[in-house]
Amino acid sequence: MSDQNAFLTIALNTWKTNIERADKLFSSFSDAQLLKDVAPGKNRLLYVFGHLTAVHDRMLPLLGFGQQSYPDLDAAFIAIPDKSQANIPSVQQVKQAWKDVNQKLSEEFARLSPADWLQKHTAVSEEDFAKDPSRNRFAVLMSRTNHLSYHLGQAILAPK
Amino acid sequence: MSDQNAFLTIALNTWKTNIERADKLFSSFSDAQLLKDVAPGKNRLLYVFGHLTAVHDRMLPLLGFGQQSYPDLDAAFIAIPDKSQANIPSVQQVKQAWKDVNQKLSEEFARLSPADWLQKHTAVSEEDFAKDPSRNRFAVLMSRTNHLSYHLGQAILAPK
Repeated sequence: MSDQNAFLTIALNTWKTNIERADKLFSSFSDAQLLKDVAPGKNRLLYVFGHLTAVHDRMLPLLGFGQQSYPDLDAAFIAIPDKSQANIPSVQQVKQAWKDVNQKLSEEFARLSPADWLQKHTAVSEEDFAKDPSRNRFAVLMSRTNHLSYHLGQAILAPK
Repeated sequence: MSDQNAFLTIALNTWKTNIERADKLFSSFSDAQLLKDVAPGKNRLLYVFGHLTAVHDRMLPLLGFGQQSYPDLDAAFIAIPDKSQANIPSVQQVKQAWKDVNQKLSEEFARLSPADWLQKHTAVSEEDFAKDPSRNRFAVLMSRTNHLSYHLGQAILAPK
């Protein structure tokens, strides 16, 4: 392992560890529990789970891996706040999408070289990237790993 | 900026951004609000704030920067669960320690070279580090940044 890869390897392991924590935590809840609020009056567990899934799905286009797979999750769990519409995707749909999206990300991550991680993400223009080369894929990885931790901290509070 | 530094620089910026978020969030609460539970029956905000401060203080010896500065915070916010003793450090003590500890970490971080970040942390033996060189300072940075995000996700739920 070269020194250059060492930072990236650890960052990728941190992502993987957090995905595994989320797998374990969300599968520890029953379907009925997933429909409960994480704390009274706050988002439901299913909303948090769906939100994480939708945000990870959006990482596919953001990192240049192709289109997002589940635009319906985006519509239900990013575009609108929880409890603002009666029909949202089911627990089974979210569980399946969560698994699928993270599997896709994992496969794409494995294909990237360290230099690929330092290339721009797709939400920044060439011009802005030239001014600030830290707006790259690796910054997205850092940001989304912390986003996952943030919501895991909330999900763990939900009543069992 | 060399490629090797690029990963480290972004990771350090992610730490800094999360510290700033925490500064902003915890200073948005009144002293009375800091004594409320983040959610009914869960840890108080002050416990979460003190816990983060104590964990960051412990990073000083863990990263080889010297002794921890506030062992009393460790005793109150790591060693025991919230609400298990009547006397805990005050809001003012935690606020002061939070500022001090993160300032110290920031100064020490600025002194480390990329190679220094890949050296072992102090909780791993030379022998175990030889087997697994990912048990280094950078891994501690990753882990503690996510730990901070995790508890920020909880603190944001507290009633205002």
